[in-house]
Amino acid sequence: MRRAKISIIGAGNVGATTAHWCAAAELGDIVLVDIPQTEDMPKGKALDLMQSSPVMGFDSNIVGTTSYDDTSGSDVVVITAGIPRKPGMSRDDLLSTNAKIMASVCEQIKKTSQHAVVIVVSNPLDAMVQKALQVTGFEPSRVLGQAGVLDTARYRTFLAMELGVSVEDVSALLMGGHGDTMVPIPSCTSVGGIPVQQLIEPARLAEIVDRTRKGGAEIVSLLKTGSAYYAPAAATAQMVEAVVRDKKRLIPCAAYCDKEYGVGGYYVGVPVVLGSSGVEKIIELTLTNEEKTAFQKSVDAVKELVATMAKLS
Amino acid sequence: MRRAKISIIGAGNVGATTAHWCAAAELGDIVLVDIPQTEDMPKGKALDLMQSSPVMGFDSNIVGTTSYDDTSGSDVVVITAGIPRKPGMSRDDLLSTNAKIMASVCEQIKKTSQHAVVIVVSNPLDAMVQKALQVTGFEPSRVLGQAGVLDTARYRTFLAMELGVSVEDVSALLMGGHGDTMVPIPSCTSVGGIPVQQLIEPARLAEIVDRTRKGGAEIVSLLKTGSAYYAPAAATAQMVEAVVRDKKRLIPCAAYCDKEYGVGGYYVGVPVVLGSSGVEKIIELTLTNEEKTAFQKSVDAVKELVATMAKLS
Amino acid sequence: MRRAKISIIGAGNVGATTAHWCAAAELGDIVLVDIPQTEDMPKGKALDLMQSSPVMGFDSNIVGTTSYDDTSGSDVVVITAGIPRKPGMSRDDLLSTNAKIMASVCEQIKKTSQHAVVIVVSNPLDAMVQKALQVTGFEPSRVLGQAGVLDTARYRTFLAMELGVSVEDVSALLMGGHGDTMVPIPSCTSVGGIPVQQLIEPARLAEIVDRTRKGGAEIVSLLKTGSAYYAPAAATAQMVEAVVRDKKRLIPCAAYCDKEYGVGGYYVGVPVVLGSSGVEKIIELTLTNEEKTAFQKSVDAVKELVATMAKLS
Amino acid sequence: MRRAKISIIGAGNVGATTAHWCAAAELGDIVLVDIPQTEDMPKGKALDLMQSSPVMGFDSNIVGTTSYDDTSGSDVVVITAGIPRKPGMSRDDLLSTNAKIMASVCEQIKKTSQHAVVIVVSNPLDAMVQKALQVTGFEPSRVLGQAGVLDTARYRTFLAMELGVSVEDVSALLMGGHGDTMVPIPSCTSVGGIPVQQLIEPARLAEIVDRTRKGGAEIVSLLKTGSAYYAPAAATAQMVEAVVRDKKRLIPCAAYCDKEYGVGGYYVGVPVVLGSSGVEKIIELTLTNEEKTAFQKSVDAVKELVATMAKLS
Repeated sequence: MRRAKISIIGAGNVGATTAHWCAAAELGDIVLVDIPQTEDMPKGKALDLMQSSPVMGFDSNIVGTTSYDDTSGSDVVVITAGIPRKPGMSRDDLLSTNAKIMASVCEQIKKTSQHAVVIVVSNPLDAMVQKALQVTGFEPSRVLGQAGVLDTARYRTFLAMELGVSVEDVSALLMGGHGDTMVPIPSCTSVGGIPVQQLIEPARLAEIVDRTRKGGAEIVSLLKTGSAYYAPAAATAQMVEAVVRDKKRLIPCAAYCDKEYGVGGYYVGVPVVLGSSGVEKIIELTLTNEEKTAFQKSVDAVKELVATMAKLS
Repeated sequence: MRRAKISIIGAGNVGATTAHWCAAAELGDIVLVDIPQTEDMPKGKALDLMQSSPVMGFDSNIVGTTSYDDTSGSDVVVITAGIPRKPGMSRDDLLSTNAKIMASVCEQIKKTSQHAVVIVVSNPLDAMVQKALQVTGFEPSRVLGQAGVLDTARYRTFLAMELGVSVEDVSALLMGGHGDTMVPIPSCTSVGGIPVQQLIEPARLAEIVDRTRKGGAEIVSLLKTGSAYYAPAAATAQMVEAVVRDKKRLIPCAAYCDKEYGVGGYYVGVPVVLGSSGVEKIIELTLTNEEKTAFQKSVDAVKELVATMAKLS
Repeated sequence: MRRAKISIIGAGNVGATTAHWCAAAELGDIVLVDIPQTEDMPKGKALDLMQSSPVMGFDSNIVGTTSYDDTSGSDVVVITAGIPRKPGMSRDDLLSTNAKIMASVCEQIKKTSQHAVVIVVSNPLDAMVQKALQVTGFEPSRVLGQAGVLDTARYRTFLAMELGVSVEDVSALLMGGHGDTMVPIPSCTSVGGIPVQQLIEPARLAEIVDRTRKGGAEIVSLLKTGSAYYAPAAATAQMVEAVVRDKKRLIPCAAYCDKEYGVGGYYVGVPVVLGSSGVEKIIELTLTNEEKTAFQKSVDAVKELVATMAKLS
Repeated sequence: MRRAKISIIGAGNVGATTAHWCAAAELGDIVLVDIPQTEDMPKGKALDLMQSSPVMGFDSNIVGTTSYDDTSGSDVVVITAGIPRKPGMSRDDLLSTNAKIMASVCEQIKKTSQHAVVIVVSNPLDAMVQKALQVTGFEPSRVLGQAGVLDTARYRTFLAMELGVSVEDVSALLMGGHGDTMVPIPSCTSVGGIPVQQLIEPARLAEIVDRTRKGGAEIVSLLKTGSAYYAPAAATAQMVEAVVRDKKRLIPCAAYCDKEYGVGGYYVGVPVVLGSSGVEKIIELTLTNEEKTAFQKSVDAVKELVATMAKLS
């Protein structure tokens, strides 16, 4: 057995912290890539991380680089590249800029890691993962996006805090997109197996869902500069682990849905089985009418986003 | 902070394997106790286990002994002592013999570890834990029994195998007693948060529940000699962890129910919050009529068992 | 990435506990094999172990079997098969019986897992691993024996106990064979990097070495029936991990030495670098004259054992 | 057992990443403190970290705050507070500024956590830890500095890279101060127990020592902005673990040496046994003349630094 090779594109906080979680779990060798303008920065983060290995007891070659040659033959590629939205920047400007970044990353991945599973973390997520699919030309099952695991993690944290119980015992599922179009599925939320409705009043649960919806913004407003990276990176590392260890995790991801849920060829947050070949199965739930409506709203938003991206490019 | 002190009474397969899991997770120092007739056997197991520590990287003093003096001041006491049912032995003989063993163990615990949380694993469980309560005179919240975590673990294993998904994503709750009186709560079983009914047909689910009910017997019939110990020990170690790390796990245990569920002062499998002070809360679920009936059957069986135990002593 | 496949031949205490450690560390899928006469026993242990997985959070298919077909394509094969020495049995009888068992196991491995790394644990070790090499015909680097990690673990445990320090900080190297022919290398023993001679008086250190030499016998005499299995299994699991995760551990193993140390084609305990292709390097130390003499005595004992084995077959 | 309470002063990269490692290892509840001017920033980092807990499976209350009231009754206090040296700033300015910060932090700690073990990480380390001792007035065994574990980690990383072996098998000890006054003890460096001199030529080893000496500067020069935090945080977390789990680690720390090594009441890097009550023992090694000279140079540098600090205040 050789070690898994994990390339992480973007050595900012989310990328480097994903490297951190992956290394600590000894998931494989890691290549941390950033653009040439960052010069030796990725090398610095990689070396710093390597130097924690004797203390933490993991064996992992971690290299920082600005060259895609070093990513050659990766088993998993995580893409965190992209700029954050700056004050005064329109949503379309952000979309257009990040789509170009994504395209240039994926041109490289396509050449150097043809058999990789690609996990997209960049925003706006649902458009970026579609772009990744288009540019790499990989099977849709090998290109997916991280969103649901993070949202669910936030939701589970709030539920555990509310009830004063271990986070290990809270299960939940959120579908659709991030933020406003997130689709909570109350029937898929439980604590120690117990449906959450038996434990929390509807009004209070609605507040918790709402806080989850705004989970990213809450962190941004507390931090003042920058945005969340610990939980996003943990969520991403869990997806990497599912692939590298072939764990068949049943978790929500942004997956390519064609006939599934009648989506028609877009990425949207749905429960999937995630293993060594990527999305091995999309689970089709029976949704209530209300859930269906909310989910359709998410899908519509994705379609619009993708259409805008096409126009802008 | 001093290390937690965990005493395990009974150095047979379940006791020693519980010590194994606890040590590997570095939960604290461990005292493995058996009866004087076993002479140096507990010492041998403890030393063997200690000698795995440099390889596994845990620091834990593990001592084997036949003297309760060594258990003095334990934070947690796990009782696995008791004889297995032998061919030709009546249920009442078993009950009577193990009740005597339990009483003699608890007389000692009462003297040496007045502040411990006591986790009973010995069979027949629901009677043994009641005996432990009577003899120690501890608050009921500090005396509880291991049953539900094991049953649930088996059920979750079978569900994960059926669906081909990670065991990490299967949540379940089983109430009542072991075996025939186990009460499955289908509404409290989910995979990745998704209610199991959306994933498995009722008839197939019934088969899986039935296999779970007979889970212990299946292992016995495969092994020919002896009974299960890996999963029982893992379940017990999880309860020890919940106490030692004050995790507030929401898991099913045999807990003392008085007004709860209208039980009236008996031990029965119910969902609880388990933390450093033992059973910190009993969760009262809304049960369907069918579930209520099944649960009552469990309670009745426990009452009968306890009554028989009283008569025999 | 597919999961590693680890076959363990012999489902007794050492084999099953090795499976336990490997599964808990999520090293791969595990096949636990025993002879047809054990019928469903391996299945029982495998299922019991599987049922601990939801509690412990590992995903590993663990199957028990009496058919080598199930081991097909293993990455690592651990051989623990063999009978223990019974009262009244001569050493030669034991050697002859276990050599036959080893031969029959290796005939199967040769057919079903041609690319595996083979780790022999059966006794008498140095002869058994030579037999494994002969019968499989694998490159010598892919056939090795577990001895030094266990002896070293015992030694490290005793040193940590003596000094009252963490086992994590004790490093040691023992060469040669088990028991009487074990070669302690005091210059290769340190605590927190500090040479042990600065911390423990020579006379006391000699006592600790002596206790280590007799470490297996000490456990046997305490247990009365049976022998050590926790530490032997931990040591074996560490070797499996080194191969599966390609960790390049620098640890003592029974490795095939030809020109190395002038051994001339026998297995003897030496420090090696252990990675995915097995013994990737044998480290040749500069030994003192005293160490050389002791090492040569070990080599001579191995030669004699192998010669006896050849005569008996 | 209650959970350990760990307060980390300074929510910058080193502080927050220490919180990350501590939480991931479930060492206890964590309070992340920063100055009032940072407003909600510590809250943001704490919440982000909490939201990784369901994914990573740890139960830890992590709170961010600007009030020392929240740290009340801590078992361990880690101090990372202080400013980095800015271009154009003299060493004395840095020393004076950070001494004031340290004093104000320690005034608070003294009031709120009288029984804590205090681990200082701020620079210049040897002066800052002396200041912490003066201001808290705690026993010297409960006030110590992080330096040696980090330096050793870097050294071990370079040695593992050089030899192509697992970081787990490299042991080393470095004494004295950071940087120029670091004292390598070649006789206390080994790989798999084997003295490093048997594996690496003296000239090459000298290069590696030299790279270690400049380890922090190497990262700074690669990163361009900022300095190392992964390895410093890992080293600090290991010390927290040693205290919280009472592991009795034998590791190098900046410890208060009075008669030890004839230091006369200053902090200097020496091997210690670190457990729940802090520095439980200082190990006095027999040093070569060369090592003695180098160590004395370190001590002299510390004395001068402390004298300067006294003058500046």
